[in-house]
Amino acid sequence: MSKPTPLSGFPELLPAQRVVERAVLDTLAEVFELHGFANIETRAVEPMDQLLRKGETSKEVYVLRRLQETDSAADSGIGLHFDLTVPFARYVLENSGKLEFPFRRYQLQKAWRGERPQEGRYREFTQADIDIVGRDVLPFHHDVEVARVMIDALSRLDFLPAFTLQVNNRKLIQGFYTGIGVPDVDEAMRVVDKLDKVPAEAVHALLVGEVGLTAAQADACLALAGIRTPDDSFVARVRELGVRHELLDEGLAELAELVRGCAPLAGDRVGVVADLAVARGLDYYTGTVFETRLQGSESLGSICSGGRYDALASDGRTTFPGVGISLGVSRVVVPLLQRGTVAGSRSVPSAVLVALADEASRAASDAVADALRRNGVPCEVAASPQKFGRQIRYAERRGIPFVWFPGDGGHEVKDIRSGTQVPAEPATWTPPPEDLRPRVVRTSDQEKTQ
Amino acid sequence: MSKPTPLSGFPELLPAQRVVERAVLDTLAEVFELHGFANIETRAVEPMDQLLRKGETSKEVYVLRRLQETDSAADSGIGLHFDLTVPFARYVLENSGKLEFPFRRYQLQKAWRGERPQEGRYREFTQADIDIVGRDVLPFHHDVEVARVMIDALSRLDFLPAFTLQVNNRKLIQGFYTGIGVPDVDEAMRVVDKLDKVPAEAVHALLVGEVGLTAAQADACLALAGIRTPDDSFVARVRELGVRHELLDEGLAELAELVRGCAPLAGDRVGVVADLAVARGLDYYTGTVFETRLQGSESLGSICSGGRYDALASDGRTTFPGVGISLGVSRVVVPLLQRGTVAGSRSVPSAVLVALADEASRAASDAVADALRRNGVPCEVAASPQKFGRQIRYAERRGIPFVWFPGDGGHEVKDIRSGTQVPAEPATWTPPPEDLRPRVVRTSDQEKTQ
Repeated sequence: MSKPTPLSGFPELLPAQRVVERAVLDTLAEVFELHGFANIETRAVEPMDQLLRKGETSKEVYVLRRLQETDSAADSGIGLHFDLTVPFARYVLENSGKLEFPFRRYQLQKAWRGERPQEGRYREFTQADIDIVGRDVLPFHHDVEVARVMIDALSRLDFLPAFTLQVNNRKLIQGFYTGIGVPDVDEAMRVVDKLDKVPAEAVHALLVGEVGLTAAQADACLALAGIRTPDDSFVARVRELGVRHELLDEGLAELAELVRGCAPLAGDRVGVVADLAVARGLDYYTGTVFETRLQGSESLGSICSGGRYDALASDGRTTFPGVGISLGVSRVVVPLLQRGTVAGSRSVPSAVLVALADEASRAASDAVADALRRNGVPCEVAASPQKFGRQIRYAERRGIPFVWFPGDGGHEVKDIRSGTQVPAEPATWTPPPEDLRPRVVRTSDQEKTQ
Repeated sequence: MSKPTPLSGFPELLPAQRVVERAVLDTLAEVFELHGFANIETRAVEPMDQLLRKGETSKEVYVLRRLQETDSAADSGIGLHFDLTVPFARYVLENSGKLEFPFRRYQLQKAWRGERPQEGRYREFTQADIDIVGRDVLPFHHDVEVARVMIDALSRLDFLPAFTLQVNNRKLIQGFYTGIGVPDVDEAMRVVDKLDKVPAEAVHALLVGEVGLTAAQADACLALAGIRTPDDSFVARVRELGVRHELLDEGLAELAELVRGCAPLAGDRVGVVADLAVARGLDYYTGTVFETRLQGSESLGSICSGGRYDALASDGRTTFPGVGISLGVSRVVVPLLQRGTVAGSRSVPSAVLVALADEASRAASDAVADALRRNGVPCEVAASPQKFGRQIRYAERRGIPFVWFPGDGGHEVKDIRSGTQVPAEPATWTPPPEDLRPRVVRTSDQEKTQ
């Protein structure tokens, strides 16, 4: 077998890079659980008719086929899920009799899309989704809750660049557009949503030329989309535009409550702004919408998005409204790893290499390792009884900070970074807490740790 | 959308069941890391030519196709991996210049096979693999190491039935068979490997009739396969059969070292036996072979298998020998969950439900929850200000053990199992450690926890 080459769009990580990805996933899981979100996993596949309900994504689906179909095509019509929302909606319906509502869940799983790979866009990628789903009703305070949970989580990822959470409310836009007499509100929203890619004049021209707005209506739409405030002062700015509509009032009240609820959590790590240009292209959102930019990597687009959908799922008799946010873990982490901005402090879990004097004393070195493990210290025994200098270099290459020298008269442990060597007991010695597990280091910190 | 039905062979878990699966995966990860194994993940897909190298599995592969192939079939020829060994071998070759050898890694990932579902056999399933891979050479003591690591891990899964690890060595069989003049050693091994499904007389008849052995040779093969000892006394029993061969000596010495190395770790939870009938069907094993039975569920077959392969991977210039074991996590856990033998102690991470007096005091209840979370206590605030009796029943249905009552004059927390209610401070109170996270309970323990 010749040396294989990577598959474009299917990123894989080296062990030290995986340390960073796991730190992100572990932190997310910890925060989500502190907020009472239960973990579930859904199968990788869904029936094709479920995956194709949103026609726009159909070209991205990977269809599965068994190499030798034998039993009447039992698998025909299944494909890999392209997000975690479609499978979650199906899971809620399938298990609605066994779940307690409101149901808070998180999923940390891979998804697959057959689209053309580019930076931050992969064919296999990991998503972190939180959602709260109600049966028939779901009070608005849950919109504030999911935003606060995600802000709490992102705030703790202190080795990543800072985030800006942009929030808006589709009722606000719909009410405003209806209030000024826009003929096709959804179509106008879709055009205004292009503002992050197309200049304002071009959007104006599209609104007039294609959606049939008057110039004054298009001006008003752009004026609304231009409002962006870090607090609830957007309410006064919208009021200044002089539009009145019941749905607008409702949207303004909800968005103001959301921004006020999030403000206490905002800080250096996560900014929160009411951004009235944010609409999210997907038309199943019915109120709150979220987008999130990575500060300094705005070109990646929104890396954490979601919102309120009043009908996540329905079985005809019961409707399940939901609100959720989905973080593109691969989209955030993989480009940073590829650029080398962050890395794991070592490529192995071992905090200690137990040295080996000769093959006959392997049992003695194994006994030291077992004693360290009973204290929760990850370690490994040297693979072969090379000269101690070579065993130390073995540890250095892996980033293992300590080398243990067993001895009949007493043991010693050496910090190979400082060279300090001290007597120690296997049954009681532990490394400093910061050396116990591989840590995430930013490139600028890297030198200090090596 | 009508109520969806499960897909056969793709098991999904309810939140309380997922607690058990995660406990298994977390324990495995913890033990593997204590032994210095680094975590990696490989992509879900491999090129078809890699997946089809073992012809016998070809019918089980799921082939991928993009729904709308547009760019010159860039994805043609990829399929989902059916185990974690094929992708790992490819990963080692692809990254050999960036890895340090011997390379210890573990993977906890899903794999897919298109085979007919049955109990313990799924189309989507989770595997836990550990392997140690060397460059050019890998000393035998690593065979003992992987066995010890897996025994350590299985021993800590104390909510599962006990395990029996069955070990053997293909050099021992090959040397013995060659020593008695068996014409086609591999074919004879494959026939003797049927002993767990076919009576001994039938195997004898096959050895004589199809492999061309004399009756005396077949007798000797079956005599060897009948040896099964919990210690290294198998050596004397093999010697009694009077066969001499250099490879037999080597195999006997290795297997004796393996059994002696594992014996100190064996106990009630994990038994270890030298079982000379174990051969593993796959012909890439070259020495040590492992199988594992779940005591009381022997019908599931081997749930944890592996061995030594002197050429896990090779790029023509360098060969990478390895030794590893793979635990079928779904195969062990899913049947127990379906039978209800084990379950999570609650369906949510929350240890505390913070009660809500009225909607106006939501901020006060949120502040209590935030204070509890700062102490690492998972909690949630009641969804609506129902009567306290209904809020307590809300907690009961989810298995949440404590309900917190905020008050201007002071807070109180109630253990809803005992009914005990005491004053408490949100900034300092924590539940007993055993209530902090959902636990795994056996059915017989269940009543005590509810």
